[in-house]
Amino acid sequence: MTLIINHPDDLLDQYVQATLLTHPHLAKHADLPLIYDRHFDGQTIPILSGGGSGHEPAHAGYVGQGMLTAALYGDIFVPPTAQEVFKAIQFLNRGQGVFVIIKNFEADLASFRAGIEAARAQGIPVRYVVSHDDISVDIKARFRKRHRGLAGTIFLHKILGAASQAGASLNQLEELGLTVSLNTATIGFATSSARLPQTGQALFDLPEGQISYGIGIHGEEGYRTVAFTSAEQLANEIINKLKLRFRWQEGQAFILMVNNLGTLSELEQATFLNDIRQLLELEGLTLPFITSGKFMTSLNMAGLSVSLCSLEDQLWLDYLKADTTAFAW
Amino acid sequence: MTLIINHPDDLLDQYVQATLLTHPHLAKHADLPLIYDRHFDGQTIPILSGGGSGHEPAHAGYVGQGMLTAALYGDIFVPPTAQEVFKAIQFLNRGQGVFVIIKNFEADLASFRAGIEAARAQGIPVRYVVSHDDISVDIKARFRKRHRGLAGTIFLHKILGAASQAGASLNQLEELGLTVSLNTATIGFATSSARLPQTGQALFDLPEGQISYGIGIHGEEGYRTVAFTSAEQLANEIINKLKLRFRWQEGQAFILMVNNLGTLSELEQATFLNDIRQLLELEGLTLPFITSGKFMTSLNMAGLSVSLCSLEDQLWLDYLKADTTAFAW
Repeated sequence: MTLIINHPDDLLDQYVQATLLTHPHLAKHADLPLIYDRHFDGQTIPILSGGGSGHEPAHAGYVGQGMLTAALYGDIFVPPTAQEVFKAIQFLNRGQGVFVIIKNFEADLASFRAGIEAARAQGIPVRYVVSHDDISVDIKARFRKRHRGLAGTIFLHKILGAASQAGASLNQLEELGLTVSLNTATIGFATSSARLPQTGQALFDLPEGQISYGIGIHGEEGYRTVAFTSAEQLANEIINKLKLRFRWQEGQAFILMVNNLGTLSELEQATFLNDIRQLLELEGLTLPFITSGKFMTSLNMAGLSVSLCSLEDQLWLDYLKADTTAFAW
Repeated sequence: MTLIINHPDDLLDQYVQATLLTHPHLAKHADLPLIYDRHFDGQTIPILSGGGSGHEPAHAGYVGQGMLTAALYGDIFVPPTAQEVFKAIQFLNRGQGVFVIIKNFEADLASFRAGIEAARAQGIPVRYVVSHDDISVDIKARFRKRHRGLAGTIFLHKILGAASQAGASLNQLEELGLTVSLNTATIGFATSSARLPQTGQALFDLPEGQISYGIGIHGEEGYRTVAFTSAEQLANEIINKLKLRFRWQEGQAFILMVNNLGTLSELEQATFLNDIRQLLELEGLTLPFITSGKFMTSLNMAGLSVSLCSLEDQLWLDYLKADTTAFAW
């Protein structure tokens, strides 16, 4: 598979440059791998997120009024360092403190927690939420749930971003973040693995015509591989897993996101979204907010993920529908 | 290559359903293959465009306040019929007439022209512009320029849509459309052909590691096939062709669009955009408006196109930056 690049080492610089070029509300910090909203005025609690690269448009695409104030990025699939997290918090703090959204991966947690501790030691009030929406299981670890942070994280970016814009305090953001996080679940599938630009090699083997369920966003293999038969079959498997997770009641309301993991076409994504919606409606659920797009990718993986969030508060709908200047929402 | 579908025959219905689901400002006409802006109030000149399907998010993604009023769609790579064009014009006309944007393909021109003639025969004032931004050549027809309507068409959608919103008359839209169209050029490349969902077959042969320059959006092969070496080499070839077309002067201002033809990753598109920008700046050009995204695809083709429009009027910048509810701008 031909990758349209010059050298793998300059990919991230290229991405940052291109992103700033096409989105004038964004700026790059002079010393940190940090994209921030140049219109942030310090009147609201700043929200920081980020993680490894390779998930574009995450996270730069969520920086803007009404979503993230800034996003840190590391190398491909490598989170930023604790020192970078600490300095980013210092940079964002205007006296009211900083709220941080972290994806649940071991390396991300280590960096972000140490950075937050360092900031707190300097007297900066910092609160955070950990996103752990993944409900797939690890067949190599006694079918334990993986609880990784996947595309459901974007619900946190949008809901907390709008809440902060509306004047929420650090306390309120923490409470809201925890509730949204606990009510969000994500699971997906892929028809082909991502390939690392450094080597061009697939990160796991998946023969042509096969589907891997429960893949991660760093090239982690899924929990089951089956032959593809139809989009409907995929939707069935995904909905069954979500049903087990939520044990929903007829009439329950959910927020739905179908996320393109990289390189599936618009027609395929639309077909799958319809199948998912039909199955959810057959279950008697209501879907007052549905979104579909490319939110959190894994390089050039071909696949989709489904995120559901049980709508515990009608206010969340207002937050989801509120204006934002972030380009990828 | 596994396609995530159920049956090729229901793909378009699925796409329309999914699009309406995720974009509540859009509605589908009861009898016509027409997506329209349900908030259109008849106070401005309605703008109609459309063509064959397979180019998603075109054209439904450009329907909204400040862009198209409605978009007709045909089967994959097949334009709507003359009768559908006629009825769509009747439906949109509120007494002030209708403006139509047509992509320059033989079958599209035949349908749209006959539909427009039928509407005019009924006394409906209709004006139109033909988009013919493609500057690639047909090596099977004595290197004649192909002049097909490609992604540069989206400049027409945005500029004319904003002009109509600002109160432009049919006459003014026609004049503006002609000027924008004459000053727009597009050329692209692919690393893999699109595959028809009906058959799963590639529409042209392109060995792994090869690049085809000057491809069309209906699976038409390019004018030259070379081995891939770097994104920079691609950018060089593309800029050389655009330079021959425009014979630009130092200091000249251009609008730039880099369009994802289907399935290239964000990092690749960003790299290529930077290379293009650097070459244009080396030429001494200024780029007051740059956009990059998935605007006009060719199913699951892997490739990019570059559109430039010579900025003949500063007002065009205001039109490009004006708000729109269209989801794909």
